[in-house]
Formats: sequence, C-alpha cells, structure tokens
Amino acid sequence: MRVLGVDPGLTRCGVGVVEGLAGRRAALVAVGVERSDPGAGIDDRLLTIADGLDRWLDAYLPDVVAIERVFAQHNVSTVMGTAQVAGLAMVAAARRGIPVALHTPSEVKAAVTGSGRAGKAQVQHMVAQILGLSEVPRPADAADALALAICHLWRPAGLMDRAELLPNTPAQRAWAAAEQAARRKG
Amino acid sequence: MRVLGVDPGLTRCGVGVVEGLAGRRAALVAVGVERSDPGAGIDDRLLTIADGLDRWLDAYLPDVVAIERVFAQHNVSTVMGTAQVAGLAMVAAARRGIPVALHTPSEVKAAVTGSGRAGKAQVQHMVAQILGLSEVPRPADAADALALAICHLWRPAGLMDRAELLPNTPAQRAWAAAEQAARRKG
Repeated sequence: MRVLGVDPGLTRCGVGVVEGLAGRRAALVAVGVERSDPGAGIDDRLLTIADGLDRWLDAYLPDVVAIERVFAQHNVSTVMGTAQVAGLAMVAAARRGIPVALHTPSEVKAAVTGSGRAGKAQVQHMVAQILGLSEVPRPADAADALALAICHLWRPAGLMDRAELLPNTPAQRAWAAAEQAARRKG
Repeated sequence: MRVLGVDPGLTRCGVGVVEGLAGRRAALVAVGVERSDPGAGIDDRLLTIADGLDRWLDAYLPDVVAIERVFAQHNVSTVMGTAQVAGLAMVAAARRGIPVALHTPSEVKAAVTGSGRAGKAQVQHMVAQILGLSEVPRPADAADALALAICHLWRPAGLMDRAELLPNTPAQRAWAAAEQAARRKG
C-alpha cells in the first residue's frame, strides 16, 4: 500500500510518499515540500500549491492520501490557509477517486513515537528511524508529511473497522487513546 | 463588467452573477446555490462544490470573482468548511486567470444598504431593490452571493486605487469606513 501524506500549509506544504503494509516496515518513496510566495495573492498561492499537489498525485499514484486534520482552534493567523490547502488536497484526491484519511497531530505522534504528546524533534527522529534514513528529512514539514503517511499505514485497523481487535503494542494503544480523545472533542 | 459572487459554504454555497458598471445600475444575470450532502465524506463534499463552481465559471465567464472573506473567529463548527470552499473558489478563478476580490461581510452590508451593521433581511431586501427583482432571491446564500457581486461592482474605486477620490454617497462612506475597519483588524 502506498500512502501520500500531506502536512498542509500555504507557505510550505509538506508531501511524503511511503510504501508498506499495516504494522510492517515502511519504506520511503519520495518526500518534498511545495511552496508558495508569501508576497503573492492568496488565489495565486493556493493555485501554486494545488498544481504542486496534482503533480505529486499524478507522479506517485498513491492508494490513499493522509492529511493532517486541521482544527479551528489552531494558530489563528495561519489556520485559514492551512485549512484551505487541506481542502485542495482533499479535492485533488477525490477527483482521482483516491480515498482520503484525516489524522490528528496526536494520532500521528502516537503512531510514530508511542506517545500522543511527543515533541516535534522526537517525531522527526522516529520518522528517520522507521524509514531507515541516515538523516531527518528537512524541512520539518517534509518529515511531518512522512509521519502522517506512516501513521496511516500503521493505524490499528481493528480500532477503525473491527471492535474485537484490540491494540497490542504500546504505539497502537497510544494511537487508540489519541483517536478516542479526538473523537470526544468532536 | 460581470462579477460572480460566491458566498462560500459546504452545505450551501451561494453563487450569483451580476453585470453593470461601477456605481451604476446592476443587473441580475444568474443566481443559484451549489449544495453538498452533509452525510457524505468531506472530500466528496468539497469535490461536489468545486465541480459546481467550475460550471458557473465556465458558463458565465465573469471578469472578477468576489468571495466573502472568511475570518478564523467565525462560527467554529462551520468555519473550516467555509474556508475550504472559499479556497476552492479562489483556485478555480486563478486557474482561469480571473482576478479574485475578497470582501468582508461589513463591506458587503455597507455597499448595499449604506450601513456596515445592517441586518440580513435588510441586505436581502436591498439586493432585490438594486437588481429590480420582485422577490428576494432564496435561499439567503443566493441573495448573499448577489450582495457580494454588487459590493464589488459598487466599491468606491477611489478608495482602492486613488487617494484623492473621496467617497461621496452615504453608501460609499459607509463602505470606506467598513473597509478601513477591516484593514485595521488586519
């Protein structure tokens, strides 16, 4: 299964492609960042990012697109652009018939580190470890996109689809707790 | 000049096309609402609205697309979808090389009623008056989209482009005050 992770952002939008099977070793396919000029108009900036996302989808043909779930409570000065880029990624996937999954930051942290409250550096370190990379991908947005893709690949299927399948690793249990917390928040 | 107004929304997205010259009589070209099924996935809903907006742009070939400026402070439960639809409208316009203008609700109210604090019913009543319609367009989202288009058509050019041109009607002065207030807010 090939997952394209998107860490949405207007100035820098992280994109990472990871391949693997649920719970197994994951492999890096490609990683990068789409950027738009902060001095340009918002419409041109969104188009630049949309065109970039289209190129990633057409080049890597993922089975799923995993996008960070954006909350209205986040950083107010950037949340509109972030939400809009997330929307563009969803439409780009839907237009190609590719399923979309949204994951919260806590779910992503739990999936790659075992703790929903892990720091950014710890997440990035684990992304490099999991993918067998000698260095942490830069910038942070690129690493975060890979973390999203890994999170989707490693999500405990039982929690989403089958109630009888209980999480059995610390990371899966942490993931489940984070997911339940996010659901309670609504 | 032909302006396509968009009142962004995920469940109902108002769209209205108005033709006219700055400060002169405006004429209705078309008005309607694009809808998405609240029971569908967010990706499919956004695609439905994006496809609808594409059809409006291709059918009516506007000179400008006027979209309501969405603020992060708005209704938290719907602001994400609203912001995402606004983003889709901007990309659809940018893809066709059509300029985009964002107007705040206060600017729209001031443009059509002379007061930036007018009520919804008053705005809708004035939209019908201005366009010479015997009834207020329904639903409210459709009327709001027309108000956005009228607001853009009637914006006091002097305030945007030439400092020496002072607003000279009550509506223009109210518009100017609303615009300045919005700029102060950043």
